[in-house]
Amino acid sequence: MSDVKQPVVLTGDRTTGPLHLGHYIGSLRARVKLQHEAQQFLLLADTQALTDNVGRHQKVTENVIEVALDYLAVGIDPARSTIFIQSQVPELAELMQYLLNLVSVARLERNPTIKAEIQLRGFERDIPAGFLTYPVSQAADITAFKATHVPVGDDQLPMIEQTNELVRRFNNTVERQVLVECEAVLSQVTRLPGLDGKAKMSKSLGNAIPLGASPDEITKAVNSMYTDPNHLRASDPGQVEGNVVFAFLDAFEPDVQKVDELKAHYRRGGLGDSVVKRVLNERLQALIEPIRTRRREFEGDRAEVLNIVRRGTMRAREVAGGTLSEVKGALGLTYFDQ
Amino acid sequence: MSDVKQPVVLTGDRTTGPLHLGHYIGSLRARVKLQHEAQQFLLLADTQALTDNVGRHQKVTENVIEVALDYLAVGIDPARSTIFIQSQVPELAELMQYLLNLVSVARLERNPTIKAEIQLRGFERDIPAGFLTYPVSQAADITAFKATHVPVGDDQLPMIEQTNELVRRFNNTVERQVLVECEAVLSQVTRLPGLDGKAKMSKSLGNAIPLGASPDEITKAVNSMYTDPNHLRASDPGQVEGNVVFAFLDAFEPDVQKVDELKAHYRRGGLGDSVVKRVLNERLQALIEPIRTRRREFEGDRAEVLNIVRRGTMRAREVAGGTLSEVKGALGLTYFDQ
Repeated sequence: MSDVKQPVVLTGDRTTGPLHLGHYIGSLRARVKLQHEAQQFLLLADTQALTDNVGRHQKVTENVIEVALDYLAVGIDPARSTIFIQSQVPELAELMQYLLNLVSVARLERNPTIKAEIQLRGFERDIPAGFLTYPVSQAADITAFKATHVPVGDDQLPMIEQTNELVRRFNNTVERQVLVECEAVLSQVTRLPGLDGKAKMSKSLGNAIPLGASPDEITKAVNSMYTDPNHLRASDPGQVEGNVVFAFLDAFEPDVQKVDELKAHYRRGGLGDSVVKRVLNERLQALIEPIRTRRREFEGDRAEVLNIVRRGTMRAREVAGGTLSEVKGALGLTYFDQ
Repeated sequence: MSDVKQPVVLTGDRTTGPLHLGHYIGSLRARVKLQHEAQQFLLLADTQALTDNVGRHQKVTENVIEVALDYLAVGIDPARSTIFIQSQVPELAELMQYLLNLVSVARLERNPTIKAEIQLRGFERDIPAGFLTYPVSQAADITAFKATHVPVGDDQLPMIEQTNELVRRFNNTVERQVLVECEAVLSQVTRLPGLDGKAKMSKSLGNAIPLGASPDEITKAVNSMYTDPNHLRASDPGQVEGNVVFAFLDAFEPDVQKVDELKAHYRRGGLGDSVVKRVLNERLQALIEPIRTRRREFEGDRAEVLNIVRRGTMRAREVAGGTLSEVKGALGLTYFDQ
């Protein structure tokens, strides 16, 4: 047994749809590794998804088990990682309520992530209060588990900053070190483009390859990928930059030399799109096949999946409940404890 | 047994100090009556008090039992009214989180009560998020108990309006009548002025008579009351309007004819302040004496007071938990219920 404390990781996903290759490359792959080095909490963020899905609650709740299936399919081990449902851990809502007093409305409005997302979602002046305050909800999620490390994209850095501000304000207010500051762990892989090359991969934009895709769906998706529109004949020189097929090869083909050779060949001409796509297709088929198989296995035993999530949620409540007790204790909200 | 459903009343106090005569006349007296006609929930609002008392949490928590003592002292009967502590009913925080998604930031900022209080407290741009959103917390308190009637001052009417907006939006969203709209019950008594005649009675302004005041404290308070500054000699005609002693007589002397005669005498001259103050002093001594005695009795048995509040809190959790189950059920957040 080591004396060094294991890092605690909090991460998760909004449950608005099944996960896809963008999630795999951006986070899931790292989580499968991380669970051997850290205590990992995986949040099925249904409550957070509801903040900008009013009236679409059915979509949010139906996808909770879909995302759990994706976790298990890629190799998240419930014995190593705690998979839990946000809405079933009421301690998070309580903690959020106390943190809400420690941040000003002006500070929340200045949060660049919130600003960008307000624009993206077209909220403008009609931001739901739950959406403006969701960074506080995130801070509650992170601090409830005393997470030391939070994997994020660089667009999420302001969230981590805000969380640590809240931690410092809370600890200063109660004059005790109750909550713990966390460190952002930046993903090393650049964001996977969508099949159309236009934006990041996203289910709602219809440019994604889901983790449960069938062989045909994968082939169809690869064949539909945006390449170089000026690369009309195989003999023409082609462009690699902005070419989705090469972006995918960079992300998924571990043989870097092979990818470099393909790029060089493509650039000087003589390499047709169909050939490169065939290489990528083979790679993706090999990658997804075991994921799809495992996903189907778990799909056949939903009761077991529910049990896994139930056990994870119980464990999450235990840990979050411990932190909440400390928080309420520090504030003196302990009337019945004597 | 009647088929007519008993009204459900939700009311309560921020726990920032012991209660005083202003509370007695403005709300407590009515609650003592109301508990015979309605199912009454009395909220010790520590969580709400924290929204604008960051760093003063000790004051907030210490006064929870003080306010409970005041309730019991004036005649609130725990067998008829449910006295409970807000922070110990986590269901309220959960419900608030769901309601937060149904109101825009702009709408909250337009709330006149919030606007006025922001000015009163000097928050300006630095409103804590918890303060801006406390009407949503109030809406959660009211709707958790399916309160049909909420006693308020007219400055609180926008809060009730906002609550009912949230009720309608929630029910529309889930296409089910889950939450219940409430009705404001306006207090019939005008607000009691402070001893100095300057503002409303308020402990923090030091112009209040607490419900546990000793005979000497009462006499001293009455003698310090602002009267007519131009009424120098008893023989001078005096002014009744703005005269705190008469405002108190209007509020506390049930013999209206007697008060009218005193007013007429005072107006035409020949009635000294000391005489009117003596009349008021006798009235207040008679009013407060049994309250003070009962308060002392309960103070001597704090364990019993804590038990009363504990039982009330358990009952409140039961009722609020029932509503929360319906709310989560309507949103589909029922993964483990099958």
